[in-house]
Amino acid sequence: MSYNIITISRQFGSGGRTIGKALAEKLGVPCYDSEIIEKVAEKSGFDRDYVKEKGEDARGAKLSGLFKSNYYYKSSDEDIIWEIQSRIVSELAEQGPCVMIGRCADYILREREDVFNVFICADMKSRAQRIVTVYGEKEDSPEKRLKDKDKRRASYYQLFTDLKWGVASNYDISLNAGSLGIDRCVDILYDICTQ
Amino acid sequence: MSYNIITISRQFGSGGRTIGKALAEKLGVPCYDSEIIEKVAEKSGFDRDYVKEKGEDARGAKLSGLFKSNYYYKSSDEDIIWEIQSRIVSELAEQGPCVMIGRCADYILREREDVFNVFICADMKSRAQRIVTVYGEKEDSPEKRLKDKDKRRASYYQLFTDLKWGVASNYDISLNAGSLGIDRCVDILYDICTQ
Repeated sequence: MSYNIITISRQFGSGGRTIGKALAEKLGVPCYDSEIIEKVAEKSGFDRDYVKEKGEDARGAKLSGLFKSNYYYKSSDEDIIWEIQSRIVSELAEQGPCVMIGRCADYILREREDVFNVFICADMKSRAQRIVTVYGEKEDSPEKRLKDKDKRRASYYQLFTDLKWGVASNYDISLNAGSLGIDRCVDILYDICTQ
Repeated sequence: MSYNIITISRQFGSGGRTIGKALAEKLGVPCYDSEIIEKVAEKSGFDRDYVKEKGEDARGAKLSGLFKSNYYYKSSDEDIIWEIQSRIVSELAEQGPCVMIGRCADYILREREDVFNVFICADMKSRAQRIVTVYGEKEDSPEKRLKDKDKRRASYYQLFTDLKWGVASNYDISLNAGSLGIDRCVDILYDICTQ
C-alpha cells in the first residue's frame, strides 16, 4: 500500500475500532489496539485498565471554571504513561505496515511521512444505539455517557498534543460511519490505501 | 448517483471550490457557486461583493472580549441575506442533482435525506501557497489572511447554525486536499457518489 501506517482516531461508539480491525484484515497487516495497552501496562507496572483510561481519556481534577471549563490537570501517572505509550507506538510503527487504533498515534507519529491519519465519527443516535446493542452498555442515558467520553478524550488530546481532537484539518480523512455505514468506510479506506 | 445533492464546505485556499467544480463536471450535474451569490444579489438588491462576503463570513462588530472572544454581531443585512440565501439554496436543490459550494448549504438542507455533506481542508502551508499562486493574493502574510478568513467563516457558521464549522462530525466526509491532492479528492468523492 502507499501508506505504511494507518492511524484510526475515533469517537466512542462510532465503530472506529471495528473499521480499523476490518481494514487491517483486508490489507493483511496487523492491527494494534489492546496490544499497545498491554505493552504499556507491562512496561509501566500499572494495571491494564488504568493504562487504558489514562492513556486516552483525561479524568484528572477539573478546574472550577475560573480559567477554562474543559481544562484537566495532568497527573504524573499520565505523564509516565504518555512517555511509555509514545515509545511503544513509535517502536510498533518501525516494525512495518499496520493499523493503529487510538492512543494519539496520529500525533506521536507526526514526523513520519508514510502515515495516513483517519478520524471516524458518527451521529449521537447511531453511537448511542451502538454502545447499548454492541458494547452492552447499560446506561440510562447513553447520550450523557457519550458526551462525557468525548469531552475526556478531547481534553486528553489537547493536553498532550495542543491540538483540537475531531477537527477535520488534523486528519487526512474523516468519515461519518453513522451515515456511510461501517462496511462502506472500510471500502473507502481500503481503496485509498491500495490505489 | 445515490445522493442527489452534494454540499462542499471548505477552508479558504484548500481547493474545495476546484474539487466541487471538477466533481460536478465528472458527475454531469450543475455546480452552484457564484450563481447563488448572483441570485441573492438580484433578490435582495444588495451589491454582489457585499452578498458574497455577508453570506459566508462574519465581519460585524466584534465584542471586546468581555463575553466571548470570537463572537460577532449579526447585522440586519446579514439576516436578510441569510433568509434569501436559504430560500435560493432550497429552491436550487429542488431542481435536481447538483453540487453546491459553501453558503452553509449543508445546514440549510439538513432536513433532506439525499444530501451528502463534504468538508475540504488542507494544511496551512498548502493553502498559503495556493492563495498566492492560484488566487493571486498579494498578502505579505498569507497565513494571517487564512487564519482571519477561517475565524470569520467559523463565526458566521456558528452564528447562523449553532454548530462548529470544520468539526468532522458535522459532515459525511472530510478530506485533506493538502495531503491527498485535488485529483484524488475528486476521485474519492466520485466513487462514493456513483457506487
